[in-house]
Amino acid sequence: MQNRQIVLAQRPVGMVDETTTSLVATERPVCGPDEALIKVGLLSIDPTIRTWMNDAPGYLPPIGIGDVIRAGGAGVVVESNTPRYAVGDVVIGMTGWQEWAVATDENKFSVVPKGLGLDLPTVMNVLGTTGLTAYFGLMDVGQFKAGDVVVVSGAGGATGSVVGQIAKAKGASKVVGIAGGPEKCAEVVEKYGFDECLDYREAHLVRRIHEACPKGVDVYFDNVGGEILDAVLANIAMYARIVVCGAISQYNAMEKPAGIANTPMLIMRRGRMQGFIVFDFASRYAEAQMALAAMVLDGTLAHREHLVQGLEHAPEALNLLFTGGNHGKTLVVVDESVQLA
Amino acid sequence: MQNRQIVLAQRPVGMVDETTTSLVATERPVCGPDEALIKVGLLSIDPTIRTWMNDAPGYLPPIGIGDVIRAGGAGVVVESNTPRYAVGDVVIGMTGWQEWAVATDENKFSVVPKGLGLDLPTVMNVLGTTGLTAYFGLMDVGQFKAGDVVVVSGAGGATGSVVGQIAKAKGASKVVGIAGGPEKCAEVVEKYGFDECLDYREAHLVRRIHEACPKGVDVYFDNVGGEILDAVLANIAMYARIVVCGAISQYNAMEKPAGIANTPMLIMRRGRMQGFIVFDFASRYAEAQMALAAMVLDGTLAHREHLVQGLEHAPEALNLLFTGGNHGKTLVVVDESVQLA
Repeated sequence: MQNRQIVLAQRPVGMVDETTTSLVATERPVCGPDEALIKVGLLSIDPTIRTWMNDAPGYLPPIGIGDVIRAGGAGVVVESNTPRYAVGDVVIGMTGWQEWAVATDENKFSVVPKGLGLDLPTVMNVLGTTGLTAYFGLMDVGQFKAGDVVVVSGAGGATGSVVGQIAKAKGASKVVGIAGGPEKCAEVVEKYGFDECLDYREAHLVRRIHEACPKGVDVYFDNVGGEILDAVLANIAMYARIVVCGAISQYNAMEKPAGIANTPMLIMRRGRMQGFIVFDFASRYAEAQMALAAMVLDGTLAHREHLVQGLEHAPEALNLLFTGGNHGKTLVVVDESVQLA
Repeated sequence: MQNRQIVLAQRPVGMVDETTTSLVATERPVCGPDEALIKVGLLSIDPTIRTWMNDAPGYLPPIGIGDVIRAGGAGVVVESNTPRYAVGDVVIGMTGWQEWAVATDENKFSVVPKGLGLDLPTVMNVLGTTGLTAYFGLMDVGQFKAGDVVVVSGAGGATGSVVGQIAKAKGASKVVGIAGGPEKCAEVVEKYGFDECLDYREAHLVRRIHEACPKGVDVYFDNVGGEILDAVLANIAMYARIVVCGAISQYNAMEKPAGIANTPMLIMRRGRMQGFIVFDFASRYAEAQMALAAMVLDGTLAHREHLVQGLEHAPEALNLLFTGGNHGKTLVVVDESVQLA
């Protein structure tokens, strides 16, 4: 009747390592009145988890020392004292890095509808925060319209790959990815159907973006920040929208990063740079999920999940996001028996 | 019958110096069909002129080598072959750095209405691009609303001083300036009525902004860019709007500037950074000019003009903007006989 958990042992400097977290065993939680007990099946590994480990202002408070690592996940309801969840429901919410979670009034879960025809990793990827971030970031924050030239960094990653595919499906005149290494770039073009993909590890990125987008970039979906953001800023079109979704290049920074110098281009081109958090769009998730599910089911939206086996490997799985060692949406399998019917 | 002109001799590296421009004498231009001849009285000295001297992409093409320095100015119509201008009209438009200009179909001027009750330097300051930039930047780009905490850099400058006063008049909960040196800061508070002014030359700007705006900055009007922009980014409130109006810290930069590192705060706080050029609002100038004229006439809007005598001193006048040696709107007096009735 144990609950294995990964807790924050000390705040990392740079990448997470073996001193950052501890695997501990506590008692399995008890399901109180109006609560439900959830057996965790899958964890969603997202770059933002790294930001919560810092003792710094964020959109959520830092994870406390000794606390379970905060994370999204999916599980199955095994006991319920509330009509909100039935035993056997597969639910998605903030499970944390542990084997057992409790749904409460403060920590609500969403029930995955039955009969979707999709498996749980796909749902966690495309219909979870990853796909929702791509959808609202491009359509709402980026004010995408048909004919736009779209550039996406982290294009081989979970969010970036979906952004490019939505843009193509909705009539972008060109979709250019930016990713690390020839293998990733090939996948971005061949699997996800981007028109082109630039390897940021090669020189002259500013010039190569210009060659790929000679009329300038209308929408830039930024998952990376830093030098890549600066290179795209040098190439924005009039009235460009820069969607500031992530800054993965900075989350492990041990020194103050070099910073971006091309912000005056926002004046020259009347550009807009706007940050967002997908939770802000919670009241409209269903709209996006229907659109995304339809794209998966009709084959328009290619997706890939990178499964890492075992709760104890969650810290290494997180590091994969920063080394580029993952392919597609990174998920940790805590209990493979948790499946959609 | 000469026309003294200041032309671009070679592109400056860093500040403008005696090798940058040449004072030349050409023949006074002839007034062709549908044209008007204008005797130039005042030149508006604006930071953007420095950007036009570079061979770099901008919102207007670079000034060509040998061409008259592009600039706004005011003058009086002395000859007219078009019903658009009457002899004696005082007009504002792109005169360039010269004694005589011609209004054409491509280079239109605005006639200053008679009986305004304001002198020409005041009109050039508050009702010209300076005041218009302040108004549209704060109200439209910045989406200012009553109760906002507003921070303005270049607060002792022509645009910044107007921004703060509009914000106060329209119900900002606090208006904080940023300026260089104790004398400038004192003027910002005493003359322009800001609640507080921070000297960027002193240390710990991030912390001092936090102390001045403990709940965060709702609107930041940025005339400066670089480190000051970065320091304000560290202090933005939820849904902050950053108005990117100028980047005066970078216009003379000889190396790539250090850049800004705090763009991830746009994610954390769902902030928006947006650039603009006042010309985009040309169809709405009258609306702003009426509001601004009313504020000057009823004494709500303090203003100060810094007059530099003589066309030949225009290059030094431009440099004043970057050394901070000016107080208020910098204007060059080319011919002091040009006055509003």
